[in-house]
Amino acid sequence: MVTIRDVALKAKTSIATVSRVINNKPGFSEETKQKVQQAMKELDYETNEIARSLITNKTNTIGVIVPNIASMLTHDLLNGIENLSQSRKYSIIVCYTYSNHERTMEYLKTLKEKRVDGIIFTSENLTDKNIEYIKKINIPIVLLSTFSEKYKLPFVKVDDYQASYAAVEYLIGKGHKNIGMLSGDPNDKIAGEPRIKGYKDALKKHHLFSNEEHIVVGNNFSFEDGRTNLVTLLEKFPEMTAIFSASDEMAAGAIATAHEKKINIPEELSIIGYDNILVSQMVYPPLTTIEQPLYDMGYTAAEMLFQQIDEKELINKEVYLPFKIIERESVKVMDSL
Amino acid sequence: MVTIRDVALKAKTSIATVSRVINNKPGFSEETKQKVQQAMKELDYETNEIARSLITNKTNTIGVIVPNIASMLTHDLLNGIENLSQSRKYSIIVCYTYSNHERTMEYLKTLKEKRVDGIIFTSENLTDKNIEYIKKINIPIVLLSTFSEKYKLPFVKVDDYQASYAAVEYLIGKGHKNIGMLSGDPNDKIAGEPRIKGYKDALKKHHLFSNEEHIVVGNNFSFEDGRTNLVTLLEKFPEMTAIFSASDEMAAGAIATAHEKKINIPEELSIIGYDNILVSQMVYPPLTTIEQPLYDMGYTAAEMLFQQIDEKELINKEVYLPFKIIERESVKVMDSL
Repeated sequence: MVTIRDVALKAKTSIATVSRVINNKPGFSEETKQKVQQAMKELDYETNEIARSLITNKTNTIGVIVPNIASMLTHDLLNGIENLSQSRKYSIIVCYTYSNHERTMEYLKTLKEKRVDGIIFTSENLTDKNIEYIKKINIPIVLLSTFSEKYKLPFVKVDDYQASYAAVEYLIGKGHKNIGMLSGDPNDKIAGEPRIKGYKDALKKHHLFSNEEHIVVGNNFSFEDGRTNLVTLLEKFPEMTAIFSASDEMAAGAIATAHEKKINIPEELSIIGYDNILVSQMVYPPLTTIEQPLYDMGYTAAEMLFQQIDEKELINKEVYLPFKIIERESVKVMDSL
Repeated sequence: MVTIRDVALKAKTSIATVSRVINNKPGFSEETKQKVQQAMKELDYETNEIARSLITNKTNTIGVIVPNIASMLTHDLLNGIENLSQSRKYSIIVCYTYSNHERTMEYLKTLKEKRVDGIIFTSENLTDKNIEYIKKINIPIVLLSTFSEKYKLPFVKVDDYQASYAAVEYLIGKGHKNIGMLSGDPNDKIAGEPRIKGYKDALKKHHLFSNEEHIVVGNNFSFEDGRTNLVTLLEKFPEMTAIFSASDEMAAGAIATAHEKKINIPEELSIIGYDNILVSQMVYPPLTTIEQPLYDMGYTAAEMLFQQIDEKELINKEVYLPFKIIERESVKVMDSL
């Protein structure tokens, strides 16, 4: 078997230098790099990552924990993470928890056993047990599109409260007074509770009537939730002229139901979504929605993770990225305006 | 540090047995398993996967190579792979190649360095260079939704030719005579060429006129392709009453353009898709399409991979899973019928 020593001999340099080149560390000239790479090529030298990991104590792998593979949100986030990781020559282990806390725990243990260099924890609510384990294993972590009230952990997200407030205020600005909401779980501290609060506070600010009955709660922000829950919402709130949907997928479901029931959107019912995933362009009419900069969020989370890995120091940074309103055709300006 | 020896002592069994339990190998009773697990728990023993990998020569990790994270197809496939892997206590490293052959090659090398136990290669056309490398590294592989004409490698897919033929024959059965096609790259031996051939042969069989001009080729089966290419297709083939779209995402794009151009679907133009991903329910009108059993395909590919890993033997199995036509509302029955 060809060893690193053989490569060093052939390239007429030291083993330490070859190791630097292989491990992408600074401290060699472009010329040296080329000589080493040439020698590796000629000798057909291939690094044994596992053996190297035991020496460098690094695996050049990060773990990404996401709740749901079927969510389209996940892809844009992963895309951002993946692009930076690829250029840093890191691999990603993607773990899907299906929002199951025990499965999350199992995956955290697996990632620890695999000695990943860092973890990005996405979208999900963390249990105390999860976080205590994370603290204990002492692996760099960044929370993405989630955060912890109780524990200080670095995170990247949009301000859900502000974004929801803005969405509802947008509807009010178009002359709507009877606004219902398709919501996620109110116990969800990330995408549930703050979005409901944003909705309520925007109504209150504009002296509009707010009623718990006007919020219908779904299971997981899904197309099916929207499809089913529009029916309930229409029954509870027949005067409604506009809806704030806490996800684009739910909005797409509501629009599908509206088509079935021959409710004309936006003429008879306006709707604003949340996320700006591709689906918002696919539905008809195209959906006005709140854009979360998902790719940038993923990329930023990866940056924060690599910073911790490189500097061998845990950081505690809180990053809020800006949302914006993408206007399409699902919201009508009320005649009274 | 607690070692496997300590666990064996505490559980009053041999090191070999503890090793069997940890590595999920047969040859111990349920009682022994519980004793070992109890001992591990009491001693707070955690396996060091990396050290273990060097001993067992197994990493309990498989690599999955997929072309495009943004494709909704990918998720259903991954979902099937992931579910079986999770129950087998395997982790997945997901690699996104963006259909770039060099990137694919880089990833194959990374997976080899990481000593994955097997690879599932998804959806993409393989270059000779890719396959020769795969043969050389001698890691079990299964091709998913792709295959190789030249090399014998096990695969799971739907028969693209038959499925496309059936889609076009379905349109003919509804009385359509002027049928256009939104296609992928004709050089793509998997989802390009065979679907075009199915389209042409179905027309020919029914003595209908077939013309290269009536096929508009997209870049990557995407929403954008469909959006742009419907315009071209309408210009080239104004008599057209129906379209076979080689992906649901392209069909969704075509439907979006039809809405913009006030073309009523299906009254003025019928369309059938391919894939039956969630998008086909999200568009309006809901899309009639060819269902690929994506979850089952992913699951079956994982089964075939684990079979090779368990039996330490490469297999050469070719599995075609059945497609079916899902009727929704995007195809009109022609009046002449």
